[in-house]
Amino acid sequence: MRSPVPDYLHQILDECGGDNSGETADYIPELAAADPEVLGICISTVDGVRYEAGDAETEVSIQSISKPFAYALAIAQHGLEHVLDRVGVEPSGEAFNELSLERDSGRPLNPMINAGALTTHALIGDTGASADERFELVRQGMSAFAGRELQVDEKVYDSELRTAYRNEAIANMLRSYDVIGQEPHDVVAGYTRQCSLLVTARDLAAMAATFANGGVQPITGERVIERDVVRQVLSVMMTCGMYDAAGDWMSTIGFPAKSGVSGGILGVLPGQVGIATVSPRLDAHGNSVRGVRLCSRMSRDMGMHIMEAPEPARAVVRRDRTLRGPSGQLVRVVSLQGAIQFSGAERVLRALEGSLGDVDRLVLDLRRVASLNNVAERMLAEAVRRAQHDGIDVTVLDPEKRLPDPDEGQPVPEYSDDLSDFADHERV
Amino acid sequence: MRSPVPDYLHQILDECGGDNSGETADYIPELAAADPEVLGICISTVDGVRYEAGDAETEVSIQSISKPFAYALAIAQHGLEHVLDRVGVEPSGEAFNELSLERDSGRPLNPMINAGALTTHALIGDTGASADERFELVRQGMSAFAGRELQVDEKVYDSELRTAYRNEAIANMLRSYDVIGQEPHDVVAGYTRQCSLLVTARDLAAMAATFANGGVQPITGERVIERDVVRQVLSVMMTCGMYDAAGDWMSTIGFPAKSGVSGGILGVLPGQVGIATVSPRLDAHGNSVRGVRLCSRMSRDMGMHIMEAPEPARAVVRRDRTLRGPSGQLVRVVSLQGAIQFSGAERVLRALEGSLGDVDRLVLDLRRVASLNNVAERMLAEAVRRAQHDGIDVTVLDPEKRLPDPDEGQPVPEYSDDLSDFADHERV
Amino acid sequence: MRSPVPDYLHQILDECGGDNSGETADYIPELAAADPEVLGICISTVDGVRYEAGDAETEVSIQSISKPFAYALAIAQHGLEHVLDRVGVEPSGEAFNELSLERDSGRPLNPMINAGALTTHALIGDTGASADERFELVRQGMSAFAGRELQVDEKVYDSELRTAYRNEAIANMLRSYDVIGQEPHDVVAGYTRQCSLLVTARDLAAMAATFANGGVQPITGERVIERDVVRQVLSVMMTCGMYDAAGDWMSTIGFPAKSGVSGGILGVLPGQVGIATVSPRLDAHGNSVRGVRLCSRMSRDMGMHIMEAPEPARAVVRRDRTLRGPSGQLVRVVSLQGAIQFSGAERVLRALEGSLGDVDRLVLDLRRVASLNNVAERMLAEAVRRAQHDGIDVTVLDPEKRLPDPDEGQPVPEYSDDLSDFADHERV
Amino acid sequence: MRSPVPDYLHQILDECGGDNSGETADYIPELAAADPEVLGICISTVDGVRYEAGDAETEVSIQSISKPFAYALAIAQHGLEHVLDRVGVEPSGEAFNELSLERDSGRPLNPMINAGALTTHALIGDTGASADERFELVRQGMSAFAGRELQVDEKVYDSELRTAYRNEAIANMLRSYDVIGQEPHDVVAGYTRQCSLLVTARDLAAMAATFANGGVQPITGERVIERDVVRQVLSVMMTCGMYDAAGDWMSTIGFPAKSGVSGGILGVLPGQVGIATVSPRLDAHGNSVRGVRLCSRMSRDMGMHIMEAPEPARAVVRRDRTLRGPSGQLVRVVSLQGAIQFSGAERVLRALEGSLGDVDRLVLDLRRVASLNNVAERMLAEAVRRAQHDGIDVTVLDPEKRLPDPDEGQPVPEYSDDLSDFADHERV
Repeated sequence: MRSPVPDYLHQILDECGGDNSGETADYIPELAAADPEVLGICISTVDGVRYEAGDAETEVSIQSISKPFAYALAIAQHGLEHVLDRVGVEPSGEAFNELSLERDSGRPLNPMINAGALTTHALIGDTGASADERFELVRQGMSAFAGRELQVDEKVYDSELRTAYRNEAIANMLRSYDVIGQEPHDVVAGYTRQCSLLVTARDLAAMAATFANGGVQPITGERVIERDVVRQVLSVMMTCGMYDAAGDWMSTIGFPAKSGVSGGILGVLPGQVGIATVSPRLDAHGNSVRGVRLCSRMSRDMGMHIMEAPEPARAVVRRDRTLRGPSGQLVRVVSLQGAIQFSGAERVLRALEGSLGDVDRLVLDLRRVASLNNVAERMLAEAVRRAQHDGIDVTVLDPEKRLPDPDEGQPVPEYSDDLSDFADHERV
Repeated sequence: MRSPVPDYLHQILDECGGDNSGETADYIPELAAADPEVLGICISTVDGVRYEAGDAETEVSIQSISKPFAYALAIAQHGLEHVLDRVGVEPSGEAFNELSLERDSGRPLNPMINAGALTTHALIGDTGASADERFELVRQGMSAFAGRELQVDEKVYDSELRTAYRNEAIANMLRSYDVIGQEPHDVVAGYTRQCSLLVTARDLAAMAATFANGGVQPITGERVIERDVVRQVLSVMMTCGMYDAAGDWMSTIGFPAKSGVSGGILGVLPGQVGIATVSPRLDAHGNSVRGVRLCSRMSRDMGMHIMEAPEPARAVVRRDRTLRGPSGQLVRVVSLQGAIQFSGAERVLRALEGSLGDVDRLVLDLRRVASLNNVAERMLAEAVRRAQHDGIDVTVLDPEKRLPDPDEGQPVPEYSDDLSDFADHERV
Repeated sequence: MRSPVPDYLHQILDECGGDNSGETADYIPELAAADPEVLGICISTVDGVRYEAGDAETEVSIQSISKPFAYALAIAQHGLEHVLDRVGVEPSGEAFNELSLERDSGRPLNPMINAGALTTHALIGDTGASADERFELVRQGMSAFAGRELQVDEKVYDSELRTAYRNEAIANMLRSYDVIGQEPHDVVAGYTRQCSLLVTARDLAAMAATFANGGVQPITGERVIERDVVRQVLSVMMTCGMYDAAGDWMSTIGFPAKSGVSGGILGVLPGQVGIATVSPRLDAHGNSVRGVRLCSRMSRDMGMHIMEAPEPARAVVRRDRTLRGPSGQLVRVVSLQGAIQFSGAERVLRALEGSLGDVDRLVLDLRRVASLNNVAERMLAEAVRRAQHDGIDVTVLDPEKRLPDPDEGQPVPEYSDDLSDFADHERV
Repeated sequence: MRSPVPDYLHQILDECGGDNSGETADYIPELAAADPEVLGICISTVDGVRYEAGDAETEVSIQSISKPFAYALAIAQHGLEHVLDRVGVEPSGEAFNELSLERDSGRPLNPMINAGALTTHALIGDTGASADERFELVRQGMSAFAGRELQVDEKVYDSELRTAYRNEAIANMLRSYDVIGQEPHDVVAGYTRQCSLLVTARDLAAMAATFANGGVQPITGERVIERDVVRQVLSVMMTCGMYDAAGDWMSTIGFPAKSGVSGGILGVLPGQVGIATVSPRLDAHGNSVRGVRLCSRMSRDMGMHIMEAPEPARAVVRRDRTLRGPSGQLVRVVSLQGAIQFSGAERVLRALEGSLGDVDRLVLDLRRVASLNNVAERMLAEAVRRAQHDGIDVTVLDPEKRLPDPDEGQPVPEYSDDLSDFADHERV
């Protein structure tokens, strides 16, 4: 059997590829000269499998898609508070090359506009780092996301730097507010090199999948960034990633994304997939025409909207039986399954609440549980603690040791591997 | 055993209740006179169980928390496109009582600011409906969300209408742009009545849970609103619900929410719970001081941030065995479990891809699958279709008939209830 | 001989009247229905002679041209400081119907935009005055400027009030900021009546001439307003009178002016003339197309730009002779002429400085001086005082007693009527 | 006798000098180090006499006061239209270092903010001119206004350029919009040199007097700039010279002025005087605290407000007699005096209109007329033409030939020097 996923990608590429509207970015000669017909797509799962169609291996400069990654690196280095002091998180409602600085402080509104991205770039590395050292850190960081060594397109870099008046203006303004401390031109040059790193749709999908996978690069297995940094970056991408159309993107497409002027769009479905499209024709917002259509299509087809909750998983309690042992003791065996979050744990607790009266032993069978998030762990552990407090013996079948150790001083529940102990019990 | 959930709520209430900063809304005499010490919390699961602590049954006027519900009713009545023509979805970066109209068109930026809420209110009911008829529709709609008949606090209504100069200004401005067609004062009066509906934290939690539950009121079981309307409303709440702090709320708390000037905050964790807090002291943004602290605390403790993906559920494929039957035929039995979305379905397909070579029969066991979203359904159905196309017999164990019927003309796979047919097969 | 002034007016009317571009105001039905071909002009001298051409006696509603007059009345009643606390003087750079309120305070930026004009209207009369009493004060004040009883066009009033949503919005906003204390609708109604007062180009020219004449109505001779109020009003007209084209009007036309949406324009050349044009077709700024052309033409033809200084009047010292009397005494006779301001007085002082050494008597002949402004008076008086202090007898020929009395304790200079006393002196 | 003018200047210096509020500019080290106690004033008449008090010969860098002069030079070189295409004339309502660019075009709002001043600087000289050549043209032009060779303070220049991040930002922004075509840094460097030219209060007064004198430097007698350019520059100074307090300056002080961050203020009273003050302590707007007080004081004391019309000069017609000659012919002798503008000429025409019935000859005596502006000349010439057309002989006593030659084909009126021809006539 052949997987239908590649077929699906080819199909939507065919359908959206016919849209020839939009133009390549005209203000950077090297980008204006890009082949407008390039069209590639790649999806990477969180375990590193990539599906692709079209020109998924064509290299383009990463441009603004580098912004969330540099933001991640800056937070990783300095901590969130330090970065928030210098770059905000509010949507600007403005185009990418507007100043969008806060009055008085000069703090850029968010890291997805150029002012914020220049500031973010300037934050990476030691204060005394040279521009080259800073760029090398950025390059290595981005390469870790991509899972391969990324290189600069020197022609794009030269072409872009030569007409980077808007960014020079912004950097000088930031310097005048002491938001950055370096020479403005050095920051512009470094940021322009960052934007000139060459990536393919395959690379972008891997980078996106690193975010989707909570910060661990799915192919190399390297933890590139901590989980809480990922959450911060995705939040900012969600509200600020698509410039002046944040609300529209949120309501129609609904997953965090970032576009670049060379035609790329990167999207993240947390816990599931990283998505990348490359097609250089841009709409009036500076977003890839066909990329937006593809994202919209995938969101709809694949249920990727983050407000599209999965059908509530009611069957967390797979089985709930009470057995009577040979000596008459009562054993309650509760078997759980699936991915358990707050609402699942709450259902388990509800099942137990007030119904353990005569029970001598509680067996909590977690062997079929696919995942437990933090709150679910703590809730189940608390249930164990309370049952013990009520004088009930508790056995947790948890070979992966996912439940935390109970508080000190409490009798340790037996973690057992199977239910064979109860083979002689009969169903009540 | 007693559920730890109420204990948790009491604990965080104790911890956050000590914050006496902020003031009750001062511009509406009746609200200014509210007891500043009221403090209530309620959480409702999507199957209608409510946990509460503190003054969860104290009635306050709903105020701005009515906005997402009126927006939902307007979309339900007119369709999204019609509403989008009149009210945008972009965050305004402005306080709730700013004009925030688009230049030229006068279209309010979003339905969560007053201009948008007045427009939304005016959209409900027939064009020729009287102000009373319109209000009654709003009241009935909100009551359906709450699961009980809501009533107006006439004193709050009178007090608020008497000083509603800002809203009168906005309504007149909207009228001047022909965004609304009714007499401005009628719209202000109707909207003020809408804001004066009395609710408790219990009510708000139920209303939130209706959104969390995809539009079905969890207690009454009534489908109040369609699933796609819920998605739209939650998206707009996410980016515009907390006024000029949208980005901050998104990154630190991370679930869609709406606050009201009487001290309520309503939050939604799609698919899981509805949350409500009531505490009248407000911060400079007009949000409840203690409510924000409680939401922040719950988000952190309970992993409620929407960008906080659950640990990837890898174990979708619970078991994958190949059996040889008595007559030598090979049977592949793939047992799935948990909540299956795109990434889970992709893993199933990957497991099957290219490895069905000699197999005579494929058995897909869905009996332990907790949920299948739309794309996962279609992907599995396509896998079935392709396996059949390769000449393999397929049996799907799917007692709940969740897989769609295959395309016409295809041999129908046998949907069976158990694996007893293969009792005589041996493991390969 | 026939005066060429009327011919000039007819000529420019012919030349500018051919411009049929622009439209009558469309947002007020009664104004939209106005005859677009009406074209009148009137110029009034500061002594009350009016020259006119075209439809100078056609009545139109005064509309925004009432603003500077109401502003004058408000300052006259409350003093400038009180009014400045409620209405600013800064140009808004915005169209006439924008809010243009200062952040936080809600103070309208200036009295020439609607927000400022509504506030100005509300200031007139006692705090407790009824709307009718307030309007009657406005009507009487405007009538005093016009020199005849002005009446309201009730049809325009009704038509305008019925769709005054924008003004209702502004008034409610002002009320919400406590900039006005009355019921918003009452203020809008009163202001709309103020705007509906009927005037002709002849009336407007007389009203303008009252400003040009320092506040004294040139025909009735009534002092309608103090000179310093006039200065304030003209200053604000100069920078804010033409809405969002203040700088353009200043540099190309250069006299203070105010336009109205019914097609009138009123201009003031301080000390010289009042100007009025009426022609209902409006440009995109809401100014009369042909009115602007006429004003531009008159400014150029007649040297009306206030930065167009008259050729410096060098010949202030008409004659400066030294005579020797029969007994040998030296008499210096200095004859002045023209309009003397600072620079003229300075020249007189310069002529005297250091050159009165042997002189026994100084005769200052002011009989041909057309005017002396305040500073010139004081400078000449100081010159007299200083000459006397040097031991010189001083005679001032000043039959109109324009020089102030010298300080007490000083010998009084003889004020004589002619120079006959010196008939026997000979020229040195 | 000693002129009271210097005494007056010393007096107001004493009175305003006690105000020690404000600080020297802190963002440029060399300016921050300036002696805050420097206090100088100078007034220059339009014929080049300068009165001064205090530190009138202390050199400071000219800073923003250079802006109107560079603007004048740019218009002189390219014509007004070309300059208007690149720099607007509208007040910005913003501080001097804001961007204040028009949306879309990037055109600076006016030449008095930095964006406009940088653009103005870049306009001077040929397109291909080097930065040094351009600066030398600016220096020569400013020197011509000052009447002496101005030199750069290289320390101020270096200090200012080193921290000119804001101006670098603005210049790069202008370059990005193609408003300027040169390398941004070159323009900033050249403009910074322009701002570093050293001037004294004496220099500034002479420069101001050149504007007051219609463009002719009063000491050197050189025509530095045409009269219509002066009008444009003064208009823009009037509305945009004092940054975000344009309306306040207009209404309280009322003459065109420009301030600089080194503490200078330059003011112009057209046709009368140029004014300059130097005192480095600045208020929150960046204007000299004591300079503003001095200007305010002088405006009030000396009647310098441009809306303060001189008392209307009614006595333009000095004498109006009808004589009968020996042979019975009637001669009307009308003697004029003073400065005659439109309103004066109108009075003459009015005196003649309809009252020349039986007269055989009209004698118009202009010998005591101090000045005639253009429109007055044309009106009187037209009166002559019309009287001739009515068959009346006309004699104009106009030794300075100020009346224009009548149109060709008309009999030439006799221009005579005195009235001796009529010695034998008797008064009617």
